[in-house]
Amino acid sequence: MTPDDLKALVRTVPDFPEPGILFRDITTLIGHGAGLAACVGHLAERARSGGADLVAGMEARGFIFGAAVAARLELGFLPVRKPGKLPVPTIGVDYALEYGRDRLEIDPQAIRPGQNVVLVDDLIATGGTALAAAELLRRAGAIVTHALFVIDLPDLHGAARLRDAGIKVEALMDFPGH
Amino acid sequence: MTPDDLKALVRTVPDFPEPGILFRDITTLIGHGAGLAACVGHLAERARSGGADLVAGMEARGFIFGAAVAARLELGFLPVRKPGKLPVPTIGVDYALEYGRDRLEIDPQAIRPGQNVVLVDDLIATGGTALAAAELLRRAGAIVTHALFVIDLPDLHGAARLRDAGIKVEALMDFPGH
Repeated sequence: MTPDDLKALVRTVPDFPEPGILFRDITTLIGHGAGLAACVGHLAERARSGGADLVAGMEARGFIFGAAVAARLELGFLPVRKPGKLPVPTIGVDYALEYGRDRLEIDPQAIRPGQNVVLVDDLIATGGTALAAAELLRRAGAIVTHALFVIDLPDLHGAARLRDAGIKVEALMDFPGH
Repeated sequence: MTPDDLKALVRTVPDFPEPGILFRDITTLIGHGAGLAACVGHLAERARSGGADLVAGMEARGFIFGAAVAARLELGFLPVRKPGKLPVPTIGVDYALEYGRDRLEIDPQAIRPGQNVVLVDDLIATGGTALAAAELLRRAGAIVTHALFVIDLPDLHGAARLRDAGIKVEALMDFPGH
């Protein structure tokens, strides 16, 4: 399946999570067997080209694509978690997101300094979550040069913000005007 | 890697999330490339033998294994979500878990009546979450006969409870005495 076929499987839901927002919902895409496998295949190809030693995904939807990409490439998967979920001492970062504030945590022992960690998530909007995750991974010694998404909402300029932080962004599809 | 090799990759953390609990942590297992790929391979083999038409995984750690298994088998993945996450009308179930109460929700349109849905999660303890998920999937018309886990804590009798509900449980490893 091409990225255009995959785009047709994304469901658009108006007014979620707030009035006026068009929510691009990957539930329908991942519910489609060939669609999910093709997404994972396309992302895995890009992660391999990006020189990934390890794949990181953000809780929760980033786990869906990130772990599948890691498994496909026989690489380890590093979950970037919401606060209080990891059973070991963590390092964390607080950040602003589109609809409030949040915090991410990782186990710093999950990274060997100098490892190339590729970020995977379902969607990039303002890029706040991905930037926070990249900062956290870098504090743990990771090299972060690539972030991969299924969907980019280019009008929210997340890819540009990541580029300014030295991170190349690739997405399988975009929704201009979101 | 055999299930015994995989078991050696699980980290045990005492007193999490409560004093006296030995937490079996899959973070170290999924951080190991060959370990993650072998887990996904073993689970996918069992899901295929179980006749899966669709794979369901519970938020959040069930997403890690469930989606990777679905992608491997080119089947759709159905996320069983925490409340308020899905952008469409849902059906939900409230249930007791080991350390409190929780609620699960699904998009009922993600299932065609009669589809064989195989449940995947990282760990089965009392089985409360898996039973609640199975009830929800059945209410949406799914046939649920198999549930797959990386880890079983047999002393908490979750597998027996699922068996009483007509669900065969398979796990890649167990920790008796948990």
